[in-house]
Amino acid sequence: MEKQKVLINGERLKNTIEEFADFGRTENNGVTRLALSDMDLKVRKHFKSECKKLGMTVVWDDMANMYATLPGVDEDLPPVVVGSHLDSVKKGGRFDGVLGVLTGLEIVRTLVENDIKPKVPVVVANITNEEGARFEPAMMSSGVISGKFDKSTMLQVADTDGVTFGEALKNSGFEGKEENRLTNAKAFLELHIEQGPVLESESLQIGVVEGVVGMVNYEIEVTGESDHAGTTPMPMRKDALFAANNLITEIREKMNKLDNKLVYTIGRFNVSPNIHTVIPNKVVFTIEARHQGPETLRQVEEIIQGLPESSGKEKCEVEVNKQWDRDTLWFDEKVINAVEQSANNIGYSNKRMVSGAGHDAQFIGTYIPTAMIFVPSVNGKSHAEDELTQWADCESGVNVMLQTVLEFVTK
Amino acid sequence: MEKQKVLINGERLKNTIEEFADFGRTENNGVTRLALSDMDLKVRKHFKSECKKLGMTVVWDDMANMYATLPGVDEDLPPVVVGSHLDSVKKGGRFDGVLGVLTGLEIVRTLVENDIKPKVPVVVANITNEEGARFEPAMMSSGVISGKFDKSTMLQVADTDGVTFGEALKNSGFEGKEENRLTNAKAFLELHIEQGPVLESESLQIGVVEGVVGMVNYEIEVTGESDHAGTTPMPMRKDALFAANNLITEIREKMNKLDNKLVYTIGRFNVSPNIHTVIPNKVVFTIEARHQGPETLRQVEEIIQGLPESSGKEKCEVEVNKQWDRDTLWFDEKVINAVEQSANNIGYSNKRMVSGAGHDAQFIGTYIPTAMIFVPSVNGKSHAEDELTQWADCESGVNVMLQTVLEFVTK
Repeated sequence: MEKQKVLINGERLKNTIEEFADFGRTENNGVTRLALSDMDLKVRKHFKSECKKLGMTVVWDDMANMYATLPGVDEDLPPVVVGSHLDSVKKGGRFDGVLGVLTGLEIVRTLVENDIKPKVPVVVANITNEEGARFEPAMMSSGVISGKFDKSTMLQVADTDGVTFGEALKNSGFEGKEENRLTNAKAFLELHIEQGPVLESESLQIGVVEGVVGMVNYEIEVTGESDHAGTTPMPMRKDALFAANNLITEIREKMNKLDNKLVYTIGRFNVSPNIHTVIPNKVVFTIEARHQGPETLRQVEEIIQGLPESSGKEKCEVEVNKQWDRDTLWFDEKVINAVEQSANNIGYSNKRMVSGAGHDAQFIGTYIPTAMIFVPSVNGKSHAEDELTQWADCESGVNVMLQTVLEFVTK
Repeated sequence: MEKQKVLINGERLKNTIEEFADFGRTENNGVTRLALSDMDLKVRKHFKSECKKLGMTVVWDDMANMYATLPGVDEDLPPVVVGSHLDSVKKGGRFDGVLGVLTGLEIVRTLVENDIKPKVPVVVANITNEEGARFEPAMMSSGVISGKFDKSTMLQVADTDGVTFGEALKNSGFEGKEENRLTNAKAFLELHIEQGPVLESESLQIGVVEGVVGMVNYEIEVTGESDHAGTTPMPMRKDALFAANNLITEIREKMNKLDNKLVYTIGRFNVSPNIHTVIPNKVVFTIEARHQGPETLRQVEEIIQGLPESSGKEKCEVEVNKQWDRDTLWFDEKVINAVEQSANNIGYSNKRMVSGAGHDAQFIGTYIPTAMIFVPSVNGKSHAEDELTQWADCESGVNVMLQTVLEFVTK
């Protein structure tokens, strides 16, 4: 067998992506498929049935994570796992997550139709509630099976209707046994859309993902005094919005001097009382920053923690509250190399990069040799109905995955 | 009669203020008495009954503005009118508005108990819906009777429960005849709390109000692109919040170079999608600026209208929408002088000032010789439950009003 000559079926991949998008397709050609919603349960059943057609066995664990297994020559050896998630955010796209699961399905279809019997089992995994759009936090189930999150706490998380994750799980028909959890594998491989503009802007086909960047999350609370906009002379004001304005200017000036791979965002910004004729007495804003290097994140925290001593406070009080952080997770060098080698072998343009977004792979990567493959996102868009990865790019990515899997299952 | 020796009864004034505060008093000693609410109707009836006890006739016009008249020696001469409003904002204070009406009541009580028969009628007026807290806009009824607002439009304004001003009026028992409107007077005088910190900070007892400042109101809309906070490199962002931050810095730098009597406020500031992990794609903020001089306001508008050409837009679009403006209203010099003379005659420290807040007097002042008297606000607070004017300051203000009224009704 010349493994370089085996390629996936791009047309079939495209059709399968569209077929899965019918489960929750929105008016504007996006997808709404919240974790364990009716639509999610329907797509899970469809996925199960498609896997069974290929002779795979399908089981699920106590967090409803699904594992479809194509037996290997030696069924007792640790499998190679290809996986991602079938859930979406509200009015999300047709590619985020589902593409990684269908990558696994397409690879097994290709193996089966080419009569390639893997030496070790190939597992296609659907990890529950990656988005955290219905039940926070994101990456809930990979977090539980990797020991990052406490399961009993997660079971009590409620959606906006008051339904807990535990209840949804019980009613899903997909609450399986803890013993089915993914505990050991030769490799875990996740293909995902980039969700950023880098590959597209550099005209690259493949991102060889080396890890997921660390991040810090803060909330800043600025307290001033809420006086009448018409009657309070400027020097007598304690304007929380003007203070916040100064602080953000200061944050930006200082952050922009740090490493240019740093990204930071002030995404939430709430003003009280938020009335056009009243001087704001409170502003609460978030700041999150991501970078692969711990030293840069330390400098970021130093800047943020210095804000209460800033000279630009406009006589307001400034309180800095750290919300949470996470360290950079570096993937397994052997698995990364296999991905890179596969892309080079087929002749796809590629570069090594780190993921700025979180993925299940970052939790699973803490105990299983892991790497990710990125494919380009048009305009860098995701979590939106117009999220798009060109069909040719989807196909290239899945071909890289196939070669990588073959590397692990045929040697 | 030595008119300087006639003084009002401070204890009675205080008791009356507290008595009126019982109509809608809140847990924290503030007042909630929205226009034409049950509480407002109750306090109107109480006000009517107190006036009638003094031999006054009480009528109301088609906007429910109440006029209690103490006859003058010559009943056909234009009256001197002392008035303000009995309505309040939600969780407002015990002084804003009501103090100006009770000033009139206390003056009539003083005239009656001192057997002073005015040459012209003295009218105490309660103007409907000054606050605009239930039915927008503020100063609705003075606006209608002065021809600034269209009555039929105002009748259709609905509160948050869907009740229109017209319906509330019809059910109030205070819908009177248009012919009762205030159309002519020797003077209109309004005593009001300052609602700002100037008198208190300069240790002055009386503000002699020369006019109400003009203002301009704008809404600025900044449109960027909503990308993933983790995956979008800083140079590829179109961050609407960072753009808004730059614009506000620019506004402040330029505004601060204008006349130091200028006040300007960015009171409302809304971010979309306002999620901590998403780069903001839209910020809409208001800016309002007030100054007595048209040239300064012209400079303000030039600054605001220049924002779409700013260099700090961070690749975002900036749209500037003018909401409304109003010119400075200068009060009648003769009436202003009478107020100032009265304060000086009694020996109260005072200064001339302009009002940064809007008042019924500014609309009535367009067709009747008008002036206002300010008394100090502790910490400059108003529209809040802890709004406070010291009893001694209330008393001083009403004494100035009494001397001013005597000046007009005894000569």
